[in-house]
Amino acid sequence: MLQGLDHIGIAVDDLEQATKDWLAVTGGQFVHREVVAEQKVEISVIQVGSLRIELIRPTDSASPIAKFIAARGTGLHHLALLAQNAQAELNRLNASEFMLIDEIARTGAEQTQIGFLHPRALGGVLVEIVQRGG
Amino acid sequence: MLQGLDHIGIAVDDLEQATKDWLAVTGGQFVHREVVAEQKVEISVIQVGSLRIELIRPTDSASPIAKFIAARGTGLHHLALLAQNAQAELNRLNASEFMLIDEIARTGAEQTQIGFLHPRALGGVLVEIVQRGG
Repeated sequence: MLQGLDHIGIAVDDLEQATKDWLAVTGGQFVHREVVAEQKVEISVIQVGSLRIELIRPTDSASPIAKFIAARGTGLHHLALLAQNAQAELNRLNASEFMLIDEIARTGAEQTQIGFLHPRALGGVLVEIVQRGG
Repeated sequence: MLQGLDHIGIAVDDLEQATKDWLAVTGGQFVHREVVAEQKVEISVIQVGSLRIELIRPTDSASPIAKFIAARGTGLHHLALLAQNAQAELNRLNASEFMLIDEIARTGAEQTQIGFLHPRALGGVLVEIVQRGG
């Protein structure tokens, strides 16, 4: 059982410009910026009311985000849904035969526990399960 | 100034299956189903905590959603952000030279007032401005 939205991930090629544009369109707040070396990305996070938007730029052409942009262009990339226990949700989804990228939860940005479903499980939508404060 | 997320729109080809799968993955609640004749789509809405997910199936090959699916496949389609006054936000964005699809707000599903930014304004992300209870 998932609890709602954690954040929306958007693939961008120019992190400065995207951050500036999203802040201008939404009137939201800049929250933080972080290089996630393991994923070969740099992220910029903005908050609009309770909505958290994660702008993601590849730092290397081998980054999964670089491959996504090469195949589909910049744009909406993933939907991150909040779980009390990420591993328990991955186990539940695995038992229900939803295709997973991560059967075992791993550490994500900001000390979260995360795991991805395979986009084929949900008609092309990449869903991330996120556990905070674990 | 936008207030946060209204809903996320997802393009699907099989509305029954997508509704079943999203409910199974999230443990969310089915909210309602509606044919929006003007847009040539049928939508199914599910709620996961405070997150509202709108699954959208084209009812005609001339539907914008049918064209989206033909070009990019099923998957994340748009981000709908909440406004107190949709027309005022469209005016503000127009004055800031963000490219719009709708300069004039129009009536959407469930008696909302809506307008879309052009995806080129935000690096390929289609953003809908939604005013409820107006």
